[in-house]
Amino acid sequence: MTDSINPGYVYEPLQVNDPEILFEQVREGNRVALAQAITLVESMAPAHQQLKSGFLHKCASLKPQSVRIGITGVPGAGKSTLIETFGKFIIDKGHRLAVLAIDPSSTKTKGSILGDKTRMQHLSANPHAFIRPTASGGNLGGTAHFTREVIMVCETAGFDHVIVETVGVGQSETLVNDLTDVFILLAVPGTGDELQGIKRGIMEMANIIAINKADGDNLAKAKQASVQLKNALHLYPLAKHDWATQVLTISALENKGIDALHETLNRFIHFSKTTGQFDHKRNNQEKIWLDKYLFDLMRNELLGNINNSKLDELKETVLKNNPSVYEAAVDLLRQLKKI
Amino acid sequence: MTDSINPGYVYEPLQVNDPEILFEQVREGNRVALAQAITLVESMAPAHQQLKSGFLHKCASLKPQSVRIGITGVPGAGKSTLIETFGKFIIDKGHRLAVLAIDPSSTKTKGSILGDKTRMQHLSANPHAFIRPTASGGNLGGTAHFTREVIMVCETAGFDHVIVETVGVGQSETLVNDLTDVFILLAVPGTGDELQGIKRGIMEMANIIAINKADGDNLAKAKQASVQLKNALHLYPLAKHDWATQVLTISALENKGIDALHETLNRFIHFSKTTGQFDHKRNNQEKIWLDKYLFDLMRNELLGNINNSKLDELKETVLKNNPSVYEAAVDLLRQLKKI
Repeated sequence: MTDSINPGYVYEPLQVNDPEILFEQVREGNRVALAQAITLVESMAPAHQQLKSGFLHKCASLKPQSVRIGITGVPGAGKSTLIETFGKFIIDKGHRLAVLAIDPSSTKTKGSILGDKTRMQHLSANPHAFIRPTASGGNLGGTAHFTREVIMVCETAGFDHVIVETVGVGQSETLVNDLTDVFILLAVPGTGDELQGIKRGIMEMANIIAINKADGDNLAKAKQASVQLKNALHLYPLAKHDWATQVLTISALENKGIDALHETLNRFIHFSKTTGQFDHKRNNQEKIWLDKYLFDLMRNELLGNINNSKLDELKETVLKNNPSVYEAAVDLLRQLKKI
Repeated sequence: MTDSINPGYVYEPLQVNDPEILFEQVREGNRVALAQAITLVESMAPAHQQLKSGFLHKCASLKPQSVRIGITGVPGAGKSTLIETFGKFIIDKGHRLAVLAIDPSSTKTKGSILGDKTRMQHLSANPHAFIRPTASGGNLGGTAHFTREVIMVCETAGFDHVIVETVGVGQSETLVNDLTDVFILLAVPGTGDELQGIKRGIMEMANIIAINKADGDNLAKAKQASVQLKNALHLYPLAKHDWATQVLTISALENKGIDALHETLNRFIHFSKTTGQFDHKRNNQEKIWLDKYLFDLMRNELLGNINNSKLDELKETVLKNNPSVYEAAVDLLRQLKKI
């Protein structure tokens, strides 16, 4: 789809069938192997499961140091521009960066967030960066996406910083928060005195809120929004020894405040590691994903043979045929088992 | 446990085994039948399922008019006092009121929120009120609770107003929001200029925010908090034709602002019905609960024979034995199927 963005990305059938060889190739930085490995870990095809398990076993045993950064923001908040600018800053510090996207709008279309060739042109040409469009997680109903496994594959390939990006429209932020060590919310001043991209549920998760487009005519508005936001955050009591959400104004376009953002990020990671919250969050994420995968596997056994529109139809039918929702659920389960 | 609170509440084995007879008894206002019906719909025991389905079938077919009110707030916000005062106000208007509680802390203990005999003394003695402590939803892992079915049973018994109460500590608010037509958040001014009981994720759901304890020395602080909160809410852009979250100051203790709260509640219900949002939300809730019950039934088949501590042990074992979480999930599913 996007050869200029990601030269090694292939959708061809798997070429390597030995988990050890694939693992070594990925570790050596072979981009074709990296692309194949990602396709593999995202696959729910029965034929892939043994290779997938063996390969993930090797990756998970490696446990490289890494920083996983979640970034969310409404469309137009300037996420691509920020990732270009911030990504270059991180790479200039000597790191290697992978950028993944979670697309909340669909589990069927591939790359609708990052598929646009005009996005992140410089970063995608950088040999120390790897940009990966969203991909579907099979027919699981969109819970898992296996993004957690894709992160591990990227870390195996030596990318020590991973950005997981999503458009802020709902559930996907929680998903990103469950995948990353630090959560950055990108907001922009609106036409009035409100901030676009601040959803109340999301503020709770944000460790850092960056108000973008603090440039030109917008500068005063961004500063004012920052003060208002700090006041609003002050309304919420903070648990003792807890990190207070930091609010920054930046301009991704004019490359302003990027150093402060990086410094704040490092400060958070340091805080999080010294308080033990870093390891605690990652351990917790293991449990969260164990549950997700367990029920995805279960769900896949039950729903693997029915497509979404058929399932919706069946749900409507059982709701129509059974006055109580509980009866409808019993009926639905019974019918699904017969498929 | 709490005979003085709820005289008709029994934990004895079911006495009526015919769904039609049970339904008629509940409709006639028989409190022993009501209590039995609630025990029945909360049961996951295989022996109860046929009676349960038949009874729910009758209840769901009735479709009485009702208003389902969700109330949340931190411990000490004054929920009991509000429900006493507000409940009496509603009953004085000619309505009948049921009060249910969802306890987020445990699915095992019964009545830890409403079990205290000193709570809602007047309301619990009122023949037009019915107060029901939290009960567990079997061994389902705490997702469902069957509170939705308990609401239906209460409505069948002629309670046209149902309050579902929870302590605001996390997931339970979403659960309450998925059960009710209107969501009231009860907050109190803190020691500083912050508001206690305002969690960011919860504000999003609140149709009405009542700042309680606007009395005595607290009055000025409550008023000030109200202004600050209105300003903070103003930061969030509102969708066109959408309800703007209303902020009120009340004193449940001194019975101040209760009429305004009732008027705002009625205004919201009217708004919600005329815009079609009322029916839309209820239809949506049916779909939400169909999914919940489907996966609860599935989960019950898989986890019904293992207790929580055994399950936690097994999870730790599979995480220890498998470097990757995905492998661990495959392993866990395999082992659970053998139990």
